[in-house]
Amino acid sequence: MKMELTKEFADRLQLMVESGDSMAIMEELQDLHPADISDILEALVPNESKFIFDLLDKEVSAEVLMNFDEDYRDRFMKLLSTEEIVEQVDNLETDDAADLLGEMEEEEKDEIISKLEDQEHASEITDLLKYDEDTAGGLMHKEYIKAKAHWAVDRCVIELRRQAEDVERVYSIYVVDKDDRLLGILSLKSLLFAEPKTKIEELYNKEKLHFVKTHEKAEEVAEMMEKYDLVSIPVVDRQEKLVGRITIDDVVDVIKEEAEKDFQMASGISENVESTSGVLKNTRSRLPWILIGLAGGVAASQIIRGYEGQIDVNPSLAFFIPLIVATAGNVGVQSSAIIVQGLASKNFQFSGIFKQIGKETLVGMLIGLICSVVIFGINLAVGGEYLLGLTISISLFVVVICAAILGALVPLLLDKVNIDPALATGPFITTANDIIGLTIYFMVAYFMYL
Amino acid sequence: MKMELTKEFADRLQLMVESGDSMAIMEELQDLHPADISDILEALVPNESKFIFDLLDKEVSAEVLMNFDEDYRDRFMKLLSTEEIVEQVDNLETDDAADLLGEMEEEEKDEIISKLEDQEHASEITDLLKYDEDTAGGLMHKEYIKAKAHWAVDRCVIELRRQAEDVERVYSIYVVDKDDRLLGILSLKSLLFAEPKTKIEELYNKEKLHFVKTHEKAEEVAEMMEKYDLVSIPVVDRQEKLVGRITIDDVVDVIKEEAEKDFQMASGISENVESTSGVLKNTRSRLPWILIGLAGGVAASQIIRGYEGQIDVNPSLAFFIPLIVATAGNVGVQSSAIIVQGLASKNFQFSGIFKQIGKETLVGMLIGLICSVVIFGINLAVGGEYLLGLTISISLFVVVICAAILGALVPLLLDKVNIDPALATGPFITTANDIIGLTIYFMVAYFMYL
Repeated sequence: MKMELTKEFADRLQLMVESGDSMAIMEELQDLHPADISDILEALVPNESKFIFDLLDKEVSAEVLMNFDEDYRDRFMKLLSTEEIVEQVDNLETDDAADLLGEMEEEEKDEIISKLEDQEHASEITDLLKYDEDTAGGLMHKEYIKAKAHWAVDRCVIELRRQAEDVERVYSIYVVDKDDRLLGILSLKSLLFAEPKTKIEELYNKEKLHFVKTHEKAEEVAEMMEKYDLVSIPVVDRQEKLVGRITIDDVVDVIKEEAEKDFQMASGISENVESTSGVLKNTRSRLPWILIGLAGGVAASQIIRGYEGQIDVNPSLAFFIPLIVATAGNVGVQSSAIIVQGLASKNFQFSGIFKQIGKETLVGMLIGLICSVVIFGINLAVGGEYLLGLTISISLFVVVICAAILGALVPLLLDKVNIDPALATGPFITTANDIIGLTIYFMVAYFMYL
Repeated sequence: MKMELTKEFADRLQLMVESGDSMAIMEELQDLHPADISDILEALVPNESKFIFDLLDKEVSAEVLMNFDEDYRDRFMKLLSTEEIVEQVDNLETDDAADLLGEMEEEEKDEIISKLEDQEHASEITDLLKYDEDTAGGLMHKEYIKAKAHWAVDRCVIELRRQAEDVERVYSIYVVDKDDRLLGILSLKSLLFAEPKTKIEELYNKEKLHFVKTHEKAEEVAEMMEKYDLVSIPVVDRQEKLVGRITIDDVVDVIKEEAEKDFQMASGISENVESTSGVLKNTRSRLPWILIGLAGGVAASQIIRGYEGQIDVNPSLAFFIPLIVATAGNVGVQSSAIIVQGLASKNFQFSGIFKQIGKETLVGMLIGLICSVVIFGINLAVGGEYLLGLTISISLFVVVICAAILGALVPLLLDKVNIDPALATGPFITTANDIIGLTIYFMVAYFMYL
């Protein structure tokens, strides 16, 4: 059932491409889902996969194209002529077509739209291109089914049959008034079981109507569909007229990208990069945080230089620099991660910043205390210098509390001023805590060895 | 449209609870979605929210219960008598009922099931309780609609009307043979437009049938539904008999939890913790990695102690310890994050470990080179000691390459032996790289100052 792609299969296919054996290729691919064909083609270089791509049904190849990784699609598109792109766009659903065209130059866009056969399709795509891709308008498509409230069931079924030709999957029917204003939602189930002469306005669900407006943010749409367990949601314009539909599969991508973005930011990766991205893109996405970390390291070196006298007096102090900075970093990263996740799932709606900071302080005190006791115990056990052990333990306690508070505070403050709090996770927090941790360590040492 | 919960609203509701004003409470809540009511009740202590909960329709309160955060639900459930739980379970869908019962003691479970009114509901729940919650069986529910292949459309509509009473949302109809073996899927759309005497076997889609088996992992189900853009998927047992259905809303939760788990692991959090979790749970989830980091810090102190002679000769070497360990940590975390995400999205199906390691080595060389040049330049600009600048630059170059390779290698190896590669992100990689980085740094210094 599930498609397992093997290296052998990819190699075999490559041989078929080299010998130009179209029949054998079609035989291999005919029962596969377009998403599987995309995976297979991605294992070949674009020139080879283009040979296979040209053999596919136009409807299948359009889906294969949209299932490619973004990087691979960019490379692949360079092999297609304008006419070939027009042919693909003709077969794409409106939202996919708009996404594909959105990546192109303005002139190329206009040329392709002007060459589309289906005028209605062309104007729908043009409409979708108006919207920012991170809004409901950018996510929606034009393939949905609507019924007027004053229709009877039998007329509705006839009208729907005509509309449904273009709509691959029908989850529900949107009920509108004469001016196309959204009134409610009618399930296929209730239509199926209704009497032919019943009016639609008696059947549809008027309560708890969920919809979004075109300018709402993609993440808000995702939150709403997730919270209310919706499979599709109608989109209206500022006059509340029905203009599109968003389905859950597009929103799943938004949810995943959002989660991946947080993970990447927490790992110090500044632009979206995949394991398949090239060496240069990979390096470029990683360099900013490394350089910021490097600047932090230089700053830390100056702090230590400021306390050089103490290291001269007691060189052992230098041994525990990594312990202090690593613990500060680790605790800070944990705090910021918990806060960022809490903000993402809107857990702080009723409780203020102070409550969260208070809790992090308590957690920090507990972790700090345990760390201090452990280190003090180890020092005693190995017969280390008493004063040094005390210095490290006291520093650790203070450093852990500060790191926990800072790790929680920075994302909460960023969120207040509408900056993505995930910025404050990972390297940023680690670098800040390194510097603060070292300062505390040497200040404590200064007083201990006074 | 979208429910915005304000502190004022929560306070007002609390006053109503205190004065026992049921009418006013019902007025406030009557038009709200159960998911919104859950959010509101979570702002109150369980005792207060229980008062409101008891006022709700049983069908609404069952949904409210399932929409609670897990932590809040645990506390809330303690307030419910066995009879009240039985009443809730009666109104829950089978998968939710099984989830709720799954959290209870065996005896309590049996008592509740034995008291359920609807015997069919009870046996369906009992069946679902057999499955591991992380498998397709654990995700599925028993509310689905099936049709026998030999039925005609008109008979089918009559049978479906009966079945559909229990099924809140119908996306498609599962077609089975006389022994309940799954044959294919029939869309409501095709049923709606079909002639009454047509046989179902002529209508349903026999190609590209997607299904899962009860023992398949939840993540595999999620991957499949995501890849093929499915809204629901039928579940079959080992004999390919239809036993359940999984819908996309349950799978969205799996996808989110998976992403959050990776993010938490990368941040050094060892068990699932939320911002709303208590101080003790929060501390417990964070302590393991902090203590491992602490052990790494102790190990690092011993390495530095081993090179104490060199610090005596040139104390400035100690200043740059944070710079070396921070950079090693940051680069390692980036590499591991990219590899973990690549593994999660199955990007390496065709390319071996060596190709990935090779790429990471190249990226590491590039980043290492840039860092070295920057540090060497800064050192020259501020008129620092030439030999020291050279030592740091050479060390950084080697350390960054090693960190990049290690960061990529460990998750790839863990994945090979079927351990979650996300274990190797965050504090683990940071700690390992601290130790390796320091060793390299002092070895380079040893040769430079020989």
